[in-house]
Amino acid sequence: MNGAESLVHSLLASGVDTCFANPGTSEMHFVAALDRVPGMRCVLGLFEGVVTGAADGYARMAGKPAATLLHCAPGLGNGLANLHNGRRANTMMVNCVGDQATYHRPLDAPLTGDTEGWARGVSGWVRTASHARDVGQDAAVAVRAAMTAPGQIATLILPSDTCWDDGGVVAQALPVPAPATADPGAIAAAAHVLRSGEPVLIVIGASALREKPIADAHRIAAATGARLLAEGSNARIERGRGRFALDRVPYPVDTAVKALSGVKHVILIGARNPVAFFAYPGKPGYLAPPDAAIHVVARPEQDVAAAMAALADELGAPMLPTPNLTGVDGPGRGAVTSEAVAQSLAALMPEHAIVADESVTFGRSLFPVTSRAAPHDWLQITGGAIGCGLPLATGAAVACPDRRVVSLEADGSAMYTIQALWTQAREKLDVTTVIFSNRKYAILLGELANVGANPGRVALDMMDLGNPDIDFVRIAGGMGVEGARAETMEQFNDLFAASLRRPGPFLIDLAT
Amino acid sequence: MNGAESLVHSLLASGVDTCFANPGTSEMHFVAALDRVPGMRCVLGLFEGVVTGAADGYARMAGKPAATLLHCAPGLGNGLANLHNGRRANTMMVNCVGDQATYHRPLDAPLTGDTEGWARGVSGWVRTASHARDVGQDAAVAVRAAMTAPGQIATLILPSDTCWDDGGVVAQALPVPAPATADPGAIAAAAHVLRSGEPVLIVIGASALREKPIADAHRIAAATGARLLAEGSNARIERGRGRFALDRVPYPVDTAVKALSGVKHVILIGARNPVAFFAYPGKPGYLAPPDAAIHVVARPEQDVAAAMAALADELGAPMLPTPNLTGVDGPGRGAVTSEAVAQSLAALMPEHAIVADESVTFGRSLFPVTSRAAPHDWLQITGGAIGCGLPLATGAAVACPDRRVVSLEADGSAMYTIQALWTQAREKLDVTTVIFSNRKYAILLGELANVGANPGRVALDMMDLGNPDIDFVRIAGGMGVEGARAETMEQFNDLFAASLRRPGPFLIDLAT
Repeated sequence: MNGAESLVHSLLASGVDTCFANPGTSEMHFVAALDRVPGMRCVLGLFEGVVTGAADGYARMAGKPAATLLHCAPGLGNGLANLHNGRRANTMMVNCVGDQATYHRPLDAPLTGDTEGWARGVSGWVRTASHARDVGQDAAVAVRAAMTAPGQIATLILPSDTCWDDGGVVAQALPVPAPATADPGAIAAAAHVLRSGEPVLIVIGASALREKPIADAHRIAAATGARLLAEGSNARIERGRGRFALDRVPYPVDTAVKALSGVKHVILIGARNPVAFFAYPGKPGYLAPPDAAIHVVARPEQDVAAAMAALADELGAPMLPTPNLTGVDGPGRGAVTSEAVAQSLAALMPEHAIVADESVTFGRSLFPVTSRAAPHDWLQITGGAIGCGLPLATGAAVACPDRRVVSLEADGSAMYTIQALWTQAREKLDVTTVIFSNRKYAILLGELANVGANPGRVALDMMDLGNPDIDFVRIAGGMGVEGARAETMEQFNDLFAASLRRPGPFLIDLAT
Repeated sequence: MNGAESLVHSLLASGVDTCFANPGTSEMHFVAALDRVPGMRCVLGLFEGVVTGAADGYARMAGKPAATLLHCAPGLGNGLANLHNGRRANTMMVNCVGDQATYHRPLDAPLTGDTEGWARGVSGWVRTASHARDVGQDAAVAVRAAMTAPGQIATLILPSDTCWDDGGVVAQALPVPAPATADPGAIAAAAHVLRSGEPVLIVIGASALREKPIADAHRIAAATGARLLAEGSNARIERGRGRFALDRVPYPVDTAVKALSGVKHVILIGARNPVAFFAYPGKPGYLAPPDAAIHVVARPEQDVAAAMAALADELGAPMLPTPNLTGVDGPGRGAVTSEAVAQSLAALMPEHAIVADESVTFGRSLFPVTSRAAPHDWLQITGGAIGCGLPLATGAAVACPDRRVVSLEADGSAMYTIQALWTQAREKLDVTTVIFSNRKYAILLGELANVGANPGRVALDMMDLGNPDIDFVRIAGGMGVEGARAETMEQFNDLFAASLRRPGPFLIDLAT
């Protein structure tokens, strides 16, 4: 058995059975091993950013890591942006990155680069395999690293001779340590603060954004008057009718500072102390008032759901009835506005949909109203590196073939990893993509104003995607995904509803 | 004057007047400065890989650096693959990469990443600006670094406060050191070897691949019987009718080893000792026979053209008449083959075309025959990171608006940076793109055989781009570039010739 075969066997033994792949020359033995060892589902991406983003979406929904198969240095480089998003989402992922043979690397052949150096910035665990005999064990350790709470990116770099040499040994799965329990003292201290009567904000993140801990958070809020917010960017939130809703820390810095004004205590449960996405001249970096006290109840790597329940119990907070949010009146009508789209999504999204949200500027008002949609999961771009949405939707659809994925995508961001549509067509994934075509980098116009600059001709030109107009229906068609353009809400509603009734991917280019 | 304005003024003062840009939030002051300071041509790319590849193509043809404007960590990450190619091409480039404000970085906001760490692997020079007052000087030093022979990538990272703070100072251009002269002793030693009568191979690279030094190389060969080869991957070769032709070190390792067998001396002029692109079990890494002696006449950073002339003169090699290669008989006919396409290119390419060659497997036979085409420049993917061709063509067209660019592109590689077509449409660039649609990663099938593996169903599936078929004409149309599909050489010839007569970009999807 060669190293590559031991790698595939060991990944399977550790429960990793899905591999998003964009292989190159140095990974040929891995590819050959995938042929010989049955059981690994391989999903091809035409660009590494698709591969890493899809592996992120897969893990967020599957609750276990996928493997990726990436080519040496520049191949990994192409995947870094979505690995960055995955790192911010605490995503479990096992990257298998090919590299020059150990003895060929010193020759500095053209494709040789700093594979390990580039991996470090996005990975919680990095190892370069040194012998075929160790590759199986390396893989098992990588999976354990990936699955250690709160989840992290593990990158195993495989010089080609470690794959083709004989002597591979299959490693069994390693036990994954349970997440640490939150400090009871921290829970007691938070309960004390919550009973003080002073204004308290609880910020919730990571795995505390599932149905049960969110319900417990609402118990706490109802019993104490504390306010609740999810972090601004979240890997996955369980929400919709029959579940408790949560607002998020707003993105625009002024809105966020206003939302947090008056707060005397910030309690963090699986969340970090909220900071502005960027610095702006004369504006604060931390969003809470400077005199607010910060209390950490549970860090993301701890058992945050248990900590939430323990805090609610410590407070003696009574159970609440299941919320009975009514649905919305019906889909939005007439002109295309963010509010109308929100209304339509709330009315039309099917049960247990998965929303991949990279709608950026246009989409900010989609979140609140869709708390009245049928129960669903909402996945966000967590690291701010655009080009995440279409791959995320792709991977989520692979993980959950029985659920519809709704991919809400800004036009500028869509163009970063548009190749994901081809994988959706190839794998016949049930994804409805909605492109919000405002034909500009709208977020940048806002940011330009935020830094106090008035855009002139050059600046406007650099934020303009309308010369030439991008025809997403044609682009999607070129990759095997059917689509149509909508210019009114009625057209949108018809297309959206029809897309849910048909298997496979569909794209709506929505003029906004 | 703020730091950003001093940056733009200083780049212009140093002769950098073209900026390929994909700005993000942290670069808004740079964008605003581009508004206020006239003289910088800004070319927008929809993805950072387009931006860095276009800057590479620009510099190869303009002979001076362009600036790039890139977003912090993941934005730079998206550009790394083509920066890797640029590094291998010794390309002059000045990257301006925005980053978190100096005082915001410690807050580790979601988009914060290892910008400087990622830049190091591709840059000969990296600096993170620390104060607005220094940014102008930083820019001047960056341009000097980029222009220092043989050319390198200089990356200036600009925390946003160094851009928006006042106190910017415009820096004047710094003198660029002339390339060092080759060691006369090395030239004399090489002449001695060349007179020995033993089998000698001269490998030529870098700026020795211009018309004059290639002609001098042929003087040497004619006088001594030495063989000549260009390196396998070259930034730019001047060639075509009326110029001396050069073969290249072959890519397939067996072919290369055979081509170099029997050689007793390898003389390097602007080139490195040839190595295999990858290691293969049981095959050599160095391509020359193990007993061949290696003689370095001039390294790429030295004045290689002068070294070549000096060596020819030292040998007393007589001038040769201008080669009188006849043109080919006419364009290829009938079925689409690599040979027929080569024939058509040789017959139809206009004078002074610029060829951006990322044709990979299908294209290997295009090079020899096109030595009979009208005089042209041939640009290659130098670092093996696919996704270089369309951006390279885009940048070359910006640099040389009076020349036709012929972009020869493999289908798999095209999908990495397909967004470049939009920039071609926006800037109305005279680029004819030919997509060689074999609907597979053909190179990988060859590599799989090279490593001794027989592809099974899974492997074949991972190299198959035909499910679904990619319709490049529709994709191009979606980005504003007209195109058509050709399935015979007659159709190809008509479309290719017609594309040359019309301004702006055109794409031919050639079934192969």
